[in-house]
Amino acid sequence: MKCYPDCFVCLFRQALNTARVATDDPVLQRQVLERLAAKLAAGLPDGTPAMLSQAAYRTVAEVTGVLDPYWDQKTTTNAEALRLVPDLERMVRTADNPLETAVRVAVAGNVIDLGIGHAFDIDVDVRELMTRPFAINAMDDFRDNIGSGRQILYVGDNSGEIVFDRVLVEQLLAAGSAVVFAVKAGPVINDATREDAEIAGLTGLVPVITTGSDDIGVNWETCSAEFCDAYDGADLVVSKGQGNFEGLTERSQNVYFLLKAKCECVAAELGVTFGDIVFKHWHE
Amino acid sequence: MKCYPDCFVCLFRQALNTARVATDDPVLQRQVLERLAAKLAAGLPDGTPAMLSQAAYRTVAEVTGVLDPYWDQKTTTNAEALRLVPDLERMVRTADNPLETAVRVAVAGNVIDLGIGHAFDIDVDVRELMTRPFAINAMDDFRDNIGSGRQILYVGDNSGEIVFDRVLVEQLLAAGSAVVFAVKAGPVINDATREDAEIAGLTGLVPVITTGSDDIGVNWETCSAEFCDAYDGADLVVSKGQGNFEGLTERSQNVYFLLKAKCECVAAELGVTFGDIVFKHWHE
Repeated sequence: MKCYPDCFVCLFRQALNTARVATDDPVLQRQVLERLAAKLAAGLPDGTPAMLSQAAYRTVAEVTGVLDPYWDQKTTTNAEALRLVPDLERMVRTADNPLETAVRVAVAGNVIDLGIGHAFDIDVDVRELMTRPFAINAMDDFRDNIGSGRQILYVGDNSGEIVFDRVLVEQLLAAGSAVVFAVKAGPVINDATREDAEIAGLTGLVPVITTGSDDIGVNWETCSAEFCDAYDGADLVVSKGQGNFEGLTERSQNVYFLLKAKCECVAAELGVTFGDIVFKHWHE
Repeated sequence: MKCYPDCFVCLFRQALNTARVATDDPVLQRQVLERLAAKLAAGLPDGTPAMLSQAAYRTVAEVTGVLDPYWDQKTTTNAEALRLVPDLERMVRTADNPLETAVRVAVAGNVIDLGIGHAFDIDVDVRELMTRPFAINAMDDFRDNIGSGRQILYVGDNSGEIVFDRVLVEQLLAAGSAVVFAVKAGPVINDATREDAEIAGLTGLVPVITTGSDDIGVNWETCSAEFCDAYDGADLVVSKGQGNFEGLTERSQNVYFLLKAKCECVAAELGVTFGDIVFKHWHE
């Protein structure tokens, strides 16, 4: 996905939001925006919105010295999500259609705000997603594509969410597929890293690799040979969230994108409405 | 009012919104944002949010060559508002409290989106504002402050809205006050200029002056001696909209601010909630 003009505005919004997490000092918050403006004026890589946005997060780190501003939030959301696992697994186990239910649990992880102070109600927040219509729904196609001996690369998105992903990974394994799970090599926003995969119990379940970089989503210029090989060699890919969507659509594969459209530009790219949930089969 | 860090993000949002009015070319839209980033990196005057935002509109003009992108919209909103005048005047004439009704008509002009393509329903859109509570309401105080021989400077805001302002000006004149109406000296956003004051029928009713500049709101560094004298010499000032609020709070006077809080920062400055309507007596 290429940048829209709006992405250059969103760049500054993301920088300010994250600067506020990193520091209460409005002088530093403003310095972040001014330094980011200097970088934009000098020219930023804008292959994808995610590649552009990287500058926002790096600038916050440079100006405030806070390298992982969402650390607290990530810890909280993992703990909150883990508390829900027994209920989520029971939901899948007792469902008429366990695979579809697991896919919906996984998208719930992308939809639900597990942020600090958020009062979470599994009955309200997850069960509603069990019946919410997908704007694009590749479920039948997905069921035919997984199965015995299929090699699946599952590209994770956020901490907290990764716990919900485990529930779907378990269903893919139960269907006979082999799964490799990919996380980021270092902290960026609230994206899941190897530490989150361990907390989520994924490392004991499937091989966990990293993208090889701390870029948002997947940046083909910086990701590792290990990740590229896993991507190119997989029979199919499951990709969570917008950041991965932006990067993965830049390289051919057989991908199922599972996400909520959280910005107008990604929604436009997918041909859906802002806020829609999407399970899209994309292949070239 | 001083800038919030958010104003530096809003700067880019305003630039893109206006660039889109001026041109359909995404390359030019992006150039606007990059040139604006270079200006911010080099240092922008940020005395008030309005002074900061000026750079957005000037950059659109420089990059696209379109000096008055909202010209069409201003023409339409004036025509639409003029069509309503007989109804608005009847509403005031038949009201139990004509002054309060005229104040509410004036704030309606600031609230209602008279943009192109907007289906306007006077019964729904104006009448609802006749009873909507003000978050801050200086009505009683205002009634005591106007009257025979009082010299009032009325600082207008947008085209279209200025037609609604005429209804309040008529009430101020009926109360025995003398009114001078101020508009912008040149086009900026959809702000009213002398041409709009003529269309609204204000030039035949009261003396119309300009701020002496095409800055958003009032910029004390660029406004004319005529405007400064009218401001300092007035017994009281009626100020419409956010841009004027941002500038006028920088200089002592006896001012009644009449506006809708259309951004979180102005709302915070006024101690109200985003979207509230406000009639605030401010004096130092």
